Amino acid sequence: MGQTLTEKILDDHLVEGDLTPGEEIGIEIDQTLTQDTTGTMVWLQFEALGLEDVQTELAAQYCDHQTYQFDFKNTDDHRFLRSAAGTFGAHFSRPGNGICHNVHKENFAAPGKTLLGSDSHTPTPGGLGQLAIGAGGLDIAVAMGGGAYYVEMPEVVNVRLEGELEGWASAKDVILEMLRRLSVKGGVGKVFEYTGPGVESLTVPERTTITNMGTELGATSSIFPTDDQTEDYLERVGRADEFVELGPDEDAEYADEITIDLSELEPLIATPSMPDNVVPVREVEGERVEQVMIGSCTNGSYEDILPAVKMLKGNEVAKHTEMIIAPASKQSAEILARQGHVAELMAAGVNFSEATCGACIGIGHVPASDSVSLRTFNRNFEGRSGIEDDNVFLCSPEVATAAAIAGEIVDPRDLAEEYDLEAPGIELPEKYDGSKADLISPDEAIDDELIKGPNIGDVPLKDPLGDTVGGETILKMDDNITTDHIIPATADILKYRSNIEKLSEFTLSRVDDTFAERAKAAPGGVLVAGENYGQGSSREHAALCPMYLGIEAVFAQSFARIHKANLFNFGIVPLAIDEETYAKIDQGDDIEIVDNIGEGVRSGADEFTVSVNGEWEFTAELDASERERDILAAGGKLSWTKQQAESGGAAPADD
Amino acid sequence: MGQTLTEKILDDHLVEGDLTPGEEIGIEIDQTLTQDTTGTMVWLQFEALGLEDVQTELAAQYCDHQTYQFDFKNTDDHRFLRSAAGTFGAHFSRPGNGICHNVHKENFAAPGKTLLGSDSHTPTPGGLGQLAIGAGGLDIAVAMGGGAYYVEMPEVVNVRLEGELEGWASAKDVILEMLRRLSVKGGVGKVFEYTGPGVESLTVPERTTITNMGTELGATSSIFPTDDQTEDYLERVGRADEFVELGPDEDAEYADEITIDLSELEPLIATPSMPDNVVPVREVEGERVEQVMIGSCTNGSYEDILPAVKMLKGNEVAKHTEMIIAPASKQSAEILARQGHVAELMAAGVNFSEATCGACIGIGHVPASDSVSLRTFNRNFEGRSGIEDDNVFLCSPEVATAAAIAGEIVDPRDLAEEYDLEAPGIELPEKYDGSKADLISPDEAIDDELIKGPNIGDVPLKDPLGDTVGGETILKMDDNITTDHIIPATADILKYRSNIEKLSEFTLSRVDDTFAERAKAAPGGVLVAGENYGQGSSREHAALCPMYLGIEAVFAQSFARIHKANLFNFGIVPLAIDEETYAKIDQGDDIEIVDNIGEGVRSGADEFTVSVNGEWEFTAELDASERERDILAAGGKLSWTKQQAESGGAAPADD
Repeated sequence: MGQTLTEKILDDHLVEGDLTPGEEIGIEIDQTLTQDTTGTMVWLQFEALGLEDVQTELAAQYCDHQTYQFDFKNTDDHRFLRSAAGTFGAHFSRPGNGICHNVHKENFAAPGKTLLGSDSHTPTPGGLGQLAIGAGGLDIAVAMGGGAYYVEMPEVVNVRLEGELEGWASAKDVILEMLRRLSVKGGVGKVFEYTGPGVESLTVPERTTITNMGTELGATSSIFPTDDQTEDYLERVGRADEFVELGPDEDAEYADEITIDLSELEPLIATPSMPDNVVPVREVEGERVEQVMIGSCTNGSYEDILPAVKMLKGNEVAKHTEMIIAPASKQSAEILARQGHVAELMAAGVNFSEATCGACIGIGHVPASDSVSLRTFNRNFEGRSGIEDDNVFLCSPEVATAAAIAGEIVDPRDLAEEYDLEAPGIELPEKYDGSKADLISPDEAIDDELIKGPNIGDVPLKDPLGDTVGGETILKMDDNITTDHIIPATADILKYRSNIEKLSEFTLSRVDDTFAERAKAAPGGVLVAGENYGQGSSREHAALCPMYLGIEAVFAQSFARIHKANLFNFGIVPLAIDEETYAKIDQGDDIEIVDNIGEGVRSGADEFTVSVNGEWEFTAELDASERERDILAAGGKLSWTKQQAESGGAAPADD
Repeated sequence: MGQTLTEKILDDHLVEGDLTPGEEIGIEIDQTLTQDTTGTMVWLQFEALGLEDVQTELAAQYCDHQTYQFDFKNTDDHRFLRSAAGTFGAHFSRPGNGICHNVHKENFAAPGKTLLGSDSHTPTPGGLGQLAIGAGGLDIAVAMGGGAYYVEMPEVVNVRLEGELEGWASAKDVILEMLRRLSVKGGVGKVFEYTGPGVESLTVPERTTITNMGTELGATSSIFPTDDQTEDYLERVGRADEFVELGPDEDAEYADEITIDLSELEPLIATPSMPDNVVPVREVEGERVEQVMIGSCTNGSYEDILPAVKMLKGNEVAKHTEMIIAPASKQSAEILARQGHVAELMAAGVNFSEATCGACIGIGHVPASDSVSLRTFNRNFEGRSGIEDDNVFLCSPEVATAAAIAGEIVDPRDLAEEYDLEAPGIELPEKYDGSKADLISPDEAIDDELIKGPNIGDVPLKDPLGDTVGGETILKMDDNITTDHIIPATADILKYRSNIEKLSEFTLSRVDDTFAERAKAAPGGVLVAGENYGQGSSREHAALCPMYLGIEAVFAQSFARIHKANLFNFGIVPLAIDEETYAKIDQGDDIEIVDNIGEGVRSGADEFTVSVNGEWEFTAELDASERERDILAAGGKLSWTKQQAESGGAAPADD
C-alpha cells in the first residue's frame, strides 16, 4: 500500500509507535520555532530541565506578538529571549523583524523536515512540504533538548484541488471554503494533504495561506507536495539547494477525500465571530466599515500587500475608514519599500505599521465600539480584537482593500468598474533579497547568560497525582471555549506571560471575572465545558494557569488537540463526558472521582465513575497514551522529564 | 522705542490690556490646534458651551498620541474627534498622519499669525515666525468660539546667535545648550526671540527643533524672524504665498540677552531624568545602550531621519541595540519611502514604525528594566517612558544614530573614522509633496453629529467659590512635579482621558498611589509643592482631576504657566508660599484659609492668612488678574463663560 506524503515524512522521523490513526507516535524533530508570548516559558523550562544546548538541527526564537512593547515587561521578555537564544544556541529574530511563520518560511522552512512550534499556526510551511505542528511550550523545550515529540497519529485527508482560481477569488477563499464546509472542528485529529491538478497553479505563498489557516479547522497540520512552484519559491528566497521532490505515492490511501474546484470559488468572508461563519461577500454587502487591516501570518506578506498596492493605485481609502497594513515580515516591507509601494500606500491613506502580529491578538488598532472591522487575519473569536462585542470579518486582501476604498463591505467584482479595478492576481518578488540584519544566528550571539527582568518568574511545579481528584465545579462553560477565553492575549494581560502568579489572576476572566479568585480560594476544583474545549492558540498558559489556581480536572465533551496535550503536560486530568452528562451538571456542583484516580491513571483505566454532590453518578473517559498517563501521574511533563533524566541518565534525549 | 517681533505680533492681535510684562493681556487667536489626548475634552467643552461653529480662521484636530490604538477607548476617541471636527468645522488629521506640530508646520503654520494649541509644544511653528502658545483645553475651546486668549505679558529675551553650526553639532545642541545654561525653569514668563547673524544659517526645520523644545525651558513661546530660509521652506511646502517678512525693530528693547556662538557648540546630551541635565556627550561615553529612538515633534521629521539614513549607509544597528524610528509626519515618511530611504533603514536593522508621538509619552517601546535608552525627544522626566527608574537620555539624531551603530553612548566625532562617517548636515526635500489623503478639510467632513463611545463622559462642573477653602494636606510634594506625575500619559491611563471619573483614580499615583482614594474620601483638601509645580504638558486633566477629587487649593513655591492657568480654569486656588513655609508644612497638616476667600478673591486681595492645625499661621499670595479672579469665583472657566454668555449675550466672543 502506498503512503501519503504525511506518512512518508512521519515514517522518516518515527522513533516510537506505528502510523495507525489514533495511536500515539513519537517523532524526531528537525526544527523548532518559538515566539515571544510562549517562548519565555519554553526557555525557562529548558533551563529548569538542566539542558545546556539546543539539540535540534535548528531552533529559532522570534519576537513578533508584542513588538509595540507597551510595557517594560514586553521589552524585558524580548531581552530575555535574546539572551536565551544566545545562551542555548538558537537563532534570534529581533522585534520588528516579522511574524515567526513568515520569517521562518522565508529563511528556514525546508521540504521533508519536521518543525515543532509553540504557536498554533506553526503548520504554515506545510505549503512548501514541511511537516509542521503546533504544540505546547513544554513539548518544544523537550524537543529542543533532543527528545521526541509525541502526538496521536492523525488521519490523513486528501483535499483534491481542481481547476484554477479565477478573477477575484484567492487562496484565502480556498481555506474559507474549507471552513465553510467543515467548521472549526472539522479537522480535529487530521492532517489535510492537498493534491490534484489544481495544486500546480498555486504559488507557495498561496499554499501557505491555506496551510496556515488549516489551524482554524482544528487540524494537526496541512501540507502540500513539492513541485516546480516549491523549487521556484526556494530559488527566490535563496535556498534552492534545500529543494526536495516530495509527494504521496500514487496509490496512497486517505481516510477521506474532499474536492474543491478552484474555478468555482468566489470571494468569501467569515462573519463575526467564528472563522467558519463563512458566506459569499455578496451576502453581506453594504455594511459600513470603519477599519480595514491587512496583515497577520495568514495574509500579511509581500504577495498579500501587493494586491492592495494595485487596487489603491489611483484610489484612496474612504475618509471614514482607517486602513492599517502591518507587514508580516520586515523583508516583505523592505522589498515593498524598495519598489516604491510603501510610499504609494501611505499616499493613498494607509497607516503602514511595524512588522507585527499585533492587532490579530488584540494588540493595537482595537476597533471602535459598535463598528465593523475587516481583517485578512485568521481568527475573529469574539473579543480577540481587544473589545467585547466586536464585529470582525475575515477575508482576503482583495476584499479588504475593496472595503477600504468603498468604506463598506463589497464584493470587489461589484466595485471594479466604478473604481477601475482589475483582479490583481498573485505576484512574487523576483528575489526575497531583504537584509538579514535582524536575524541573529547562534554564531553571532551576544549573550551567554540569561537576562531576567523583575517580571520573569519561575516555572511552577505540581505534586504527583494523588488518589483523589475533584472539588467544586468552579465554572461551567459552553462549546468552543477558546484559549483566548482561558488566557486572553490582549496587551494588558500578555505582559504577564512570564509571570504565572500574576497571569493566573486573569484566567477565564472573559467568561467570569470572579473565576480566578474563586478557584484559588477553593480546595481542588474542576472545570466543565462543552465541545472543542481549548481551541485556538497553542499557549500552554491556558493549562498552566488553571493548574496554578488548583484546578485538578476538566470535564468536556471534547478537547482541542494542543490544549489537551497541554493539560497532560501540566498535570490536569482531561476527561470526556457525553452531552447528557454535560447538560445535567451545574456550576457549583461538587464533583468527585469515586475511583482511585492515581491508581487508575497508572494502571491504564479509561473509565472513571464520578459522583455529583454525592447524589448521582456518571462515567467519564480518559483517552490517554501510556506516556500521557505517566506524565499525568508525575504531576506534569516537567516533573516527569526530570524524573526520567534522574533515573535513566540520558533522558530527556531518550524522551 | 522699537518693538520686538513678539510685541509686534501681540500688538496686531491685542484686544485687551497693554504690553507690560507681567500684566495680563487678551489676544485674538487666528488658528487653534488640538490633539487626541487633550482634544476630546476641548470639544466636549465646546459642546457644553453651546457653541456651534469654529470662529477662528482655522482649527485643526490631530490624532497623534495614541495612534497604536491599544484600547477601543482610543479608537472611540479618534472617531469622536473626527465627528467633532466635522460637526464644528475643523480640519481632521487621521491617526497615523503624524504629530500635530509637524503636520501643522507643514500644512498650516503661517508667519505673523497667532496659534493656540492644547499641547505644550505648540510653540513649534515659532521657527517660521508664528506666535504659537500652548494652553489648557478650555482656553482653546473658548478661543475656537471666538473668545480672546488671556495670558500674562511675557518678558521678551533676545537669544543672539553668532557663527554657524559646525561638524556634528546640530540644532538640538542649541536648545540643549539653552537648557544647560537656563534650566527647566529658566524660561518661565518669557518668550525667547532668536536674532543675530547665526539665524540665517539655520533652516526652518532646525529652527522648529529649537522653538519646539523651548517648552522645556518653561517659556511661554519661542520665535524666529522670517527671512529667505522661511520663504524657502514655505515654497517647499507649497505655501509660498503665505510668506511675510517679519522681524524685530532695530532698536527693539529686550528684557535680557543671551549669546550663543553656534560654531562653539559640540554634541550635547541630557542625562536622566530632566531635560536640563545637559553635558557634552563625551562625558558619558561608553554607557551600553539597549534602545535608540528617533522621532517626536522635536526631531522626527524628514530632516531628522535623513542623518540616520546617511550614517547607516554601509553600517548596521548593533545586535544588542534596538533602533526604532517613528516618523513625526506621514509626509516625511512618504518622501523618505519614495526616495528609497525607508528600505535602507529597514535593511540596516531599524524598526520603522507608524507616524506617532507614541514612545515619547510612554506609549510603546517602553525601555527594558535597568537599561539605557537614547532618544531624540524633548523630555526625559523619570517614568515618562513607561517604566519607573528609567535611564532616558535626550540627544540629536546624529548622537542617537552613533549610539545605535556602536551599541553604546559615543560622540559621533569619536566614531567617525572607524565607521567611515561624515557629519550629515541638514538637508530638506526639494518639495514636501506628500499626499493629503489623511487630512480631511471641513469641506470634506463626513460627520455632522458627535459620535460618543461608552467611555466618553461629561465635563464635570464645580460650584462657585465659597467662603472657606482648605482641608487636609493630602500630599506634600518636592520641586519640579510634572504633569506626568499628576496625570501620567502611559497607555493604561491615557485611555481614560475622556472619562474624568475614571481618570481621576490615577491622579498623582506616581507620587503616592493612595492619593486619589484619600483625596476623594476627605472633605476638601489641599496640595503642597515646591518650585515649578505642574511643569510639562498642557493637559488640563492635571487640574480637572484634582478638582474632581475635591482639592480646593494648591500651595506651591512657584507654578508652571499653563498649569496655573488650568488651576484657575477649574476653580482650584493657586497660592504661592515661600521656602520657609514650604519646609514647615507637613503632609497631613490641616490647612485653612483664615480670611474669607470668596470675598478676598472677588475683591482683589492678593494675600491670605492661612492657619495650620490651628497652631501657626503663614501668608500665601494670590497672583491673579481680575479675569482670573472672576473665573475662580465662578467655580472655573466653563461656569464663568456660561454665565458671561447668559448675562452678556454675545459672549464668549466677548471673553
